[in-house]
Amino acid sequence: MDLHIDNIIKDMKKDDFQAYLLTQFTNVEYISNYKPTSFAFCIIKDNPIIYASGMDMELANRDSKIEVKEYESYEVMIRELKEDGIKSLAIEPTLPFSTYSRFKDDFQIEAKTYIDKQRMIKTPLEIEKITKATEIAQKSFLQLDILNNGNTEKEIAFDLVRHMIENGAFKESFDTIVTSGADSSLPHAIPQAKKLEQPILIDWGAIYDGYCSDNTRTMVYTEFQQEIWDIVAEAHDKAIKAIRPGMKCCEVDKVARDIIADYGYGDKFIHSTGHSLGLDIHETPGFSLRDETTVEEGMVITVEPGIYLEGEFGVRLEDTIAVSKRGNVIGDLPLNID
Amino acid sequence: MDLHIDNIIKDMKKDDFQAYLLTQFTNVEYISNYKPTSFAFCIIKDNPIIYASGMDMELANRDSKIEVKEYESYEVMIRELKEDGIKSLAIEPTLPFSTYSRFKDDFQIEAKTYIDKQRMIKTPLEIEKITKATEIAQKSFLQLDILNNGNTEKEIAFDLVRHMIENGAFKESFDTIVTSGADSSLPHAIPQAKKLEQPILIDWGAIYDGYCSDNTRTMVYTEFQQEIWDIVAEAHDKAIKAIRPGMKCCEVDKVARDIIADYGYGDKFIHSTGHSLGLDIHETPGFSLRDETTVEEGMVITVEPGIYLEGEFGVRLEDTIAVSKRGNVIGDLPLNID
Repeated sequence: MDLHIDNIIKDMKKDDFQAYLLTQFTNVEYISNYKPTSFAFCIIKDNPIIYASGMDMELANRDSKIEVKEYESYEVMIRELKEDGIKSLAIEPTLPFSTYSRFKDDFQIEAKTYIDKQRMIKTPLEIEKITKATEIAQKSFLQLDILNNGNTEKEIAFDLVRHMIENGAFKESFDTIVTSGADSSLPHAIPQAKKLEQPILIDWGAIYDGYCSDNTRTMVYTEFQQEIWDIVAEAHDKAIKAIRPGMKCCEVDKVARDIIADYGYGDKFIHSTGHSLGLDIHETPGFSLRDETTVEEGMVITVEPGIYLEGEFGVRLEDTIAVSKRGNVIGDLPLNID
Repeated sequence: MDLHIDNIIKDMKKDDFQAYLLTQFTNVEYISNYKPTSFAFCIIKDNPIIYASGMDMELANRDSKIEVKEYESYEVMIRELKEDGIKSLAIEPTLPFSTYSRFKDDFQIEAKTYIDKQRMIKTPLEIEKITKATEIAQKSFLQLDILNNGNTEKEIAFDLVRHMIENGAFKESFDTIVTSGADSSLPHAIPQAKKLEQPILIDWGAIYDGYCSDNTRTMVYTEFQQEIWDIVAEAHDKAIKAIRPGMKCCEVDKVARDIIADYGYGDKFIHSTGHSLGLDIHETPGFSLRDETTVEEGMVITVEPGIYLEGEFGVRLEDTIAVSKRGNVIGDLPLNID
């Protein structure tokens, strides 16, 4: 059987769980290679199975590496699990409460992160796909005609997505952020139909063969903007240099956070230093204040410090890091875009 | 206070719930006009409040119609709810299990659909926005040069999104489906980098001011494809004609399903006849086998019967219906595209 499933079953057995229910589309995809389009119940057990929606059966039969059955009803699914001798059922922490409620009277249930733990460590093939996604995204960025006066944020965002698709991306990995002027102090700004102001902040990524990329660059124009940019760049560079397997995620966050605080902007760095990515654009662990997860080889995590000055502007610089003996930046786009 | 909130509080009080926790982004948007980009806890009570992520505070303060506080921790939030005398807490059915777990020891908790019930009935302004989204999407469809030989499914899909954005859409309301030939038997097919085959099925929609549209057209070329198309069109037309306030949703489904079954294709209609839409592309209720919800004025629900012949092709025809005294089709795109 698949190594991922084997590892998860080992973890389950340590905790005396006989079955593990997964419904998040990317979890089902990770386990089976079939990505649901409607709904699916993937049950990891000695003989794993997916109950797929009728409308997905053709797709599931085509793509899934594990057995697929057409979902009929909760009653049938629960009966078959019981016939299989299942008494304890681990669930994803994200399982909707209403789905949990359908199972809770028939099984001993607990939320478990076995799947997240498995997905944390990327295989060389997964890192290759993330790298390819990053290369497509970065090449596309360099094809932009950002300084062509008269372009709006919305137009630049659209051009960037067009380039990514033309360069082989499946699609953008999240809503592309092109923001400028005072709006750039919103970390997740929405591109507006307004001509570019200064500074210009672009946060974008591609999906290639299911895997996401994520980068941010900020182009600054005044002395004060440059001063802020330099602080963020220092936090970005030093956090990346600090990354070593064995340290805690929060320690990487602290490196970036302390630098920004030392310059007096601690309260203007209003988010975490980074998040893992893979099949999803946001995965665990993250470089954040409270994440005590140990950094391990194979993790792929962003480093994206930022300073946000409400009413003025924001600066964020982001790269994606593959952890081996140290933190290796994926892609080769310079921080400083001229 | 806002009418939506008033209605929800009335429903809560009937059930003796003192507070109602909402975390789905479109639920928070519906209640407050602020759409979270990170996470938010919106608590409906006599003095409603949103605990927003620090990185969203500028946005939340700008957009929210109700009070906003920066989220600090579950502990603080729970303490403040208790200080407010809250003992019973209703939650969304979709609330992640792990979030539910943080509240379950301190409150009497039950999943409630007060918000879904409220969102089911669209205001005239909401219907106006859905209509505008539909008009943008349909106009964009007509601008496509579908029959220009040499275009791939992926290129057509991209062109359609480009037209929608140029025509004023915020973005596509879901991943645009352009599929052709045998792939069209997958209800949620992904556009491929292959030249268009026959038939051609396009399922697409726009978002305008937060609100979604949804349409499907299938262009057929052989006698057998036309025969299937005619059956689907009959199911589509007769289901729409049948819609009246007071009937059950499943009765509308039955009209379409019975017609397709009568022609011998009952087992090839592998999904529901339709779903509601609004801020989300899939809302409740739906025209489905088991949905006993009463059809009411103000509901906006799609009608989209289909026949899927694996290895051959699929046909689906979809319009969005606003229910008043009868079912009114939104938009004016003919079913039959030449």
